[in-house]
Amino acid sequence: MRPSNRTPEQNREIKITRHYTDYAEGSVLIEVGNTKVLCNATVSESVPRFLKGKGKGWVTAEYSMLPRATHKRNQREAAKGQQGGRTLEIQRLIARSLRAAVDLNAFGENMITVDCDVIQADGGTRTASITGACIALADALNWMVVKGKLKKSPLKQMIAAVSVGIYKGTPVCDLDYAEDSNAQTDMNVVMTESGGLIEIQGTAEEGAFSHQELLAMLALANTGINNLVVEQKKALNVE
Amino acid sequence: MRPSNRTPEQNREIKITRHYTDYAEGSVLIEVGNTKVLCNATVSESVPRFLKGKGKGWVTAEYSMLPRATHKRNQREAAKGQQGGRTLEIQRLIARSLRAAVDLNAFGENMITVDCDVIQADGGTRTASITGACIALADALNWMVVKGKLKKSPLKQMIAAVSVGIYKGTPVCDLDYAEDSNAQTDMNVVMTESGGLIEIQGTAEEGAFSHQELLAMLALANTGINNLVVEQKKALNVE
Amino acid sequence: MRPSNRTPEQNREIKITRHYTDYAEGSVLIEVGNTKVLCNATVSESVPRFLKGKGKGWVTAEYSMLPRATHKRNQREAAKGQQGGRTLEIQRLIARSLRAAVDLNAFGENMITVDCDVIQADGGTRTASITGACIALADALNWMVVKGKLKKSPLKQMIAAVSVGIYKGTPVCDLDYAEDSNAQTDMNVVMTESGGLIEIQGTAEEGAFSHQELLAMLALANTGINNLVVEQKKALNVE
Amino acid sequence: MRPSNRTPEQNREIKITRHYTDYAEGSVLIEVGNTKVLCNATVSESVPRFLKGKGKGWVTAEYSMLPRATHKRNQREAAKGQQGGRTLEIQRLIARSLRAAVDLNAFGENMITVDCDVIQADGGTRTASITGACIALADALNWMVVKGKLKKSPLKQMIAAVSVGIYKGTPVCDLDYAEDSNAQTDMNVVMTESGGLIEIQGTAEEGAFSHQELLAMLALANTGINNLVVEQKKALNVE
Amino acid sequence: MRPSNRTPEQNREIKITRHYTDYAEGSVLIEVGNTKVLCNATVSESVPRFLKGKGKGWVTAEYSMLPRATHKRNQREAAKGQQGGRTLEIQRLIARSLRAAVDLNAFGENMITVDCDVIQADGGTRTASITGACIALADALNWMVVKGKLKKSPLKQMIAAVSVGIYKGTPVCDLDYAEDSNAQTDMNVVMTESGGLIEIQGTAEEGAFSHQELLAMLALANTGINNLVVEQKKALNVE
Amino acid sequence: MRPSNRTPEQNREIKITRHYTDYAEGSVLIEVGNTKVLCNATVSESVPRFLKGKGKGWVTAEYSMLPRATHKRNQREAAKGQQGGRTLEIQRLIARSLRAAVDLNAFGENMITVDCDVIQADGGTRTASITGACIALADALNWMVVKGKLKKSPLKQMIAAVSVGIYKGTPVCDLDYAEDSNAQTDMNVVMTESGGLIEIQGTAEEGAFSHQELLAMLALANTGINNLVVEQKKALNVE
Repeated sequence: MRPSNRTPEQNREIKITRHYTDYAEGSVLIEVGNTKVLCNATVSESVPRFLKGKGKGWVTAEYSMLPRATHKRNQREAAKGQQGGRTLEIQRLIARSLRAAVDLNAFGENMITVDCDVIQADGGTRTASITGACIALADALNWMVVKGKLKKSPLKQMIAAVSVGIYKGTPVCDLDYAEDSNAQTDMNVVMTESGGLIEIQGTAEEGAFSHQELLAMLALANTGINNLVVEQKKALNVE
Repeated sequence: MRPSNRTPEQNREIKITRHYTDYAEGSVLIEVGNTKVLCNATVSESVPRFLKGKGKGWVTAEYSMLPRATHKRNQREAAKGQQGGRTLEIQRLIARSLRAAVDLNAFGENMITVDCDVIQADGGTRTASITGACIALADALNWMVVKGKLKKSPLKQMIAAVSVGIYKGTPVCDLDYAEDSNAQTDMNVVMTESGGLIEIQGTAEEGAFSHQELLAMLALANTGINNLVVEQKKALNVE
Repeated sequence: MRPSNRTPEQNREIKITRHYTDYAEGSVLIEVGNTKVLCNATVSESVPRFLKGKGKGWVTAEYSMLPRATHKRNQREAAKGQQGGRTLEIQRLIARSLRAAVDLNAFGENMITVDCDVIQADGGTRTASITGACIALADALNWMVVKGKLKKSPLKQMIAAVSVGIYKGTPVCDLDYAEDSNAQTDMNVVMTESGGLIEIQGTAEEGAFSHQELLAMLALANTGINNLVVEQKKALNVE
Repeated sequence: MRPSNRTPEQNREIKITRHYTDYAEGSVLIEVGNTKVLCNATVSESVPRFLKGKGKGWVTAEYSMLPRATHKRNQREAAKGQQGGRTLEIQRLIARSLRAAVDLNAFGENMITVDCDVIQADGGTRTASITGACIALADALNWMVVKGKLKKSPLKQMIAAVSVGIYKGTPVCDLDYAEDSNAQTDMNVVMTESGGLIEIQGTAEEGAFSHQELLAMLALANTGINNLVVEQKKALNVE
Repeated sequence: MRPSNRTPEQNREIKITRHYTDYAEGSVLIEVGNTKVLCNATVSESVPRFLKGKGKGWVTAEYSMLPRATHKRNQREAAKGQQGGRTLEIQRLIARSLRAAVDLNAFGENMITVDCDVIQADGGTRTASITGACIALADALNWMVVKGKLKKSPLKQMIAAVSVGIYKGTPVCDLDYAEDSNAQTDMNVVMTESGGLIEIQGTAEEGAFSHQELLAMLALANTGINNLVVEQKKALNVE
Repeated sequence: MRPSNRTPEQNREIKITRHYTDYAEGSVLIEVGNTKVLCNATVSESVPRFLKGKGKGWVTAEYSMLPRATHKRNQREAAKGQQGGRTLEIQRLIARSLRAAVDLNAFGENMITVDCDVIQADGGTRTASITGACIALADALNWMVVKGKLKKSPLKQMIAAVSVGIYKGTPVCDLDYAEDSNAQTDMNVVMTESGGLIEIQGTAEEGAFSHQELLAMLALANTGINNLVVEQKKALNVE
């Protein structure tokens, strides 16, 4: 039995609020159970130096947790004077995932930066960030079309992400903190809406995991991400 | 005429949401017009080194703006590797102000840290932070009483803050960004609920300001803060 | 009775030495009682990036205390790897104050940086820095005129600063360390030579302060600053 | 056809030199084709603060590339003042993988730090680091047994790692730089000698990858890692 | 002919002001020609961690140049966020030199830190720092005797330092900036009052220097340092 | 008797491996007894900003020790967030020494950076770095000639370095760690192949050293460096 009484394949309730803040070109508050992440997409008409003059665009991301997003307060990274390894690893994952959603060659020399700030953390903050950030990204690209900066959105397809794992010997989907902190194996999966794999990061927390367990987790991820894409599209259709 | 059509002495609409997040001992979302600040108070049963063994408590604060709280994106301080002068100045002001609300000698060797994270910035973020943080602080102190960690809350009285200024020659209360960025003089005032002054920081942005103007701004601050204290108390009475 | 036996309105003895070092375009050692600050103004023919191409000049300042300026040695900020909040707050105040003395639009794309290094600290280092820096600034501007870089000095008027406070219940002017460390309220005031207010920063260290006390402190600041301006002008007339 | 003329399932030649330096408790130079990594294991009789008093040991790792390990010189991270996201991500992966090889509860309050310094980089530096570091770890644990600090080595089993990917449409094993920089998909796999999965990190560099491709890559990883474990054991049997 | 019209073996005029600031246990302003360094010695009753419990004392030093000590302003190291290589190298030299003057085994677990802050730089700041710092050190040790913290000063002997070099083919003593910036060879020498060598650091700036030139420079250093020791002793005899 | 049984004037065995890594334009592993340093020279077709447009080239160097090059592990400087004073001092010395070997005016606006990474440290790492780096530099300059980037190598002559010292009262050449850590005096000498002095840095570790001892050490350095230059030339003649 899962701590939340969900069935193994059951996602947490998801709530998506677009236009959450007024100034960002795309602004989404995504709530996955008690995990809440604010994803703000910013458009800038320039690209990083390594891309200058190549006629290509770029998408990047930053990730942070508010100090008291968690049960215990974490020291603020700005006060510590640097971003930790976990933060850098997560924001690199978010950025790579989002770039897989966009045809960068059809984007001009523009850049979108998506800031994912975790307001409350109950497990799965990186996957919630990816799922929410993709909506903010879509909104920002649409904003560019409306403003005449692009003829057509270079969004190829939606991407979404979920965590899966082995909890008390059973493969489960969309772990909350109670499960995540006790899981034997934890895997984050990013997929496209058409079922292609973008990223898969699995870690044995205790012992190793078998090929069979991997396949079971992948199947759960596939279903879970399908559900998320449905929610993403529903949200994008409301204006 | 003010850009917001308010009268010179009129505060912006204020909205206070207590228990905004689940984990902090005090958690308040304060909205002052379009300015939105999340104030999370964390209790810890220890004090900074310089107070160890003195039987006294401490209150401190940290302040940050989300990168896209503003019209243009600001670089994340954690990514820059340090907090800027403005941030440090503001969080020192918030902390000093909050300490004026508490009897630190009746607090034991405990500490409260209030994190003020600006979700959206439309002027007056430091004063909104102080006003909201005081409620989160009150909640955290009450939580300590409920949990038996303190017999009685050491809160002496509420404090609140407002910005006042000279806009197009007229003294006005509670400036939004449109006014603030064009004001000749800008002054932040922190007061107790009984009308005592805690902090006053006035700056001439253009030319100098006169003794007369200072008195006019102080009068507006007095009224504005009275209004805020009414809202604070109203919020604290709702459970 | 004040520890220094001064009357409440009495400034400390002030000594101004111009041309204290040989290389800076303006170099002033200001001694206010036992507080000694070296203020060196450097001219550069360029402006910060945000002003490039706007035809306007800039004035900025940096502040530091030598490690053993105080009774106990402070760790060197260069060794710590960053400037503290107090330092940043003070140098922002000095810079804002100095900019109020200059017509930046009549200054061309030039910049003056005033370094205020505290040799000895006996209270009031930030106000002594402002008072001394304004003289160094005037000298540097005159140097530019002499060198043919400017037709006319863009100095609008002198500014000076003093601290006032409530010590043992009595409002007093120009606090030394013995008073400052025990004051109930502490206020720094920056004014122009014609009596306009530039900055006012008052802080209740203990309890709150009343409107009456504020007015009494302002009156003392007014007199104290007038005295300082007299000394500034006397110094500038000697060659 | 692979640039190196290898068959898709063929590992690069591997060379393992134990006792490469004189002072480390375990010191291994691992050469995987032209990739060369020096793995030095250091024993310390203490654990990080979060483990103090829990009777458990710890294994950690650090990773770095010499500035000219690559075709173009990279700026030295010590000179930049911080380790980059890629470095932190890799050293976290190495450390997690190594911890999976050791029974930390049977290790006492001891710690082993394995430094992986890349002398030359021709693709697969993180997987070569893991494969080499596990041998250095085994040597350091044996050293502790010989020195009487442990009764028995807490090594549970060897672990090894390989990168697999999709290169020009074909799944291949153990990519060198020429392949890696052009691969459509890149996946790092860490396994135990008995075939359990420890870590799997797959990334689509271009488009997405299918479930079928994932299975093909996993099969290659399984064979490749088996080959590496044979080499590890051969090396450990030579004294 | 030297730019200063001095003979090759002639030192610059030296001026030593003891008790320059009020709070440091030893405080010396040393002026060597136009080079001015403030040397403040601070006593602390503890030693660095690596010496704890060994019954030995320690002497250390820090060095800094005020930003406008030189013809052009240097960026403040505290603002840059780190001390440069030149600064670290110099303060290591000063500290090593001062430790050679003291019997650390007869000093108890005490530490003296000497801060050398360059007010004005006209060449030879590191040697002036050493010469001045040794007087501040002697004063601080005497202060400890007077205060009853030590029975007897552990000062073994005075040390002093001078720079020598080859300027336009001629060996010269005590180079000022005009010479230093054009010297072919530059050498800093630290000696004891009895003629023992403590440090010698010679650098060819252009071409190499010969054994003969080295001997000529050493002879000049010997004379120059003797002159400095006479001045040190004269200053220490005045109360 | 020396710990290594060498005679006082005897160098340690030296082994030079050119082309140690594949990618650097010059790559030398130098082994001086048990001290091993990898020296990689990188050519870049640009110069630092202060030399832009002056038609001159530049040579610079960086130095680092792998964390476990020594008996005890040192914390990685990249992890600490800055290079220490010893590192900066050494790399400044290496760079200055190398620049003395090259006619920078005949080098065009090119730069060579030599990275000296210490694989194992048994004393004399900075002098081994200089001796090895000069060979890597020569190789890199020859590479530029072969590639047609220079008509002729601007190398003026080889330079080499050795440490000498007073160990148990006797002057000795090329100290290993056992001697170095117990030496009364330690001196590093850099010379050209024709016997000119480039750098001399002598430090009394205990007491002072006499003029006589200095001369004895210089004589040893002269012989020792001659031996090293023979080895450098032998190595450069092998292809």
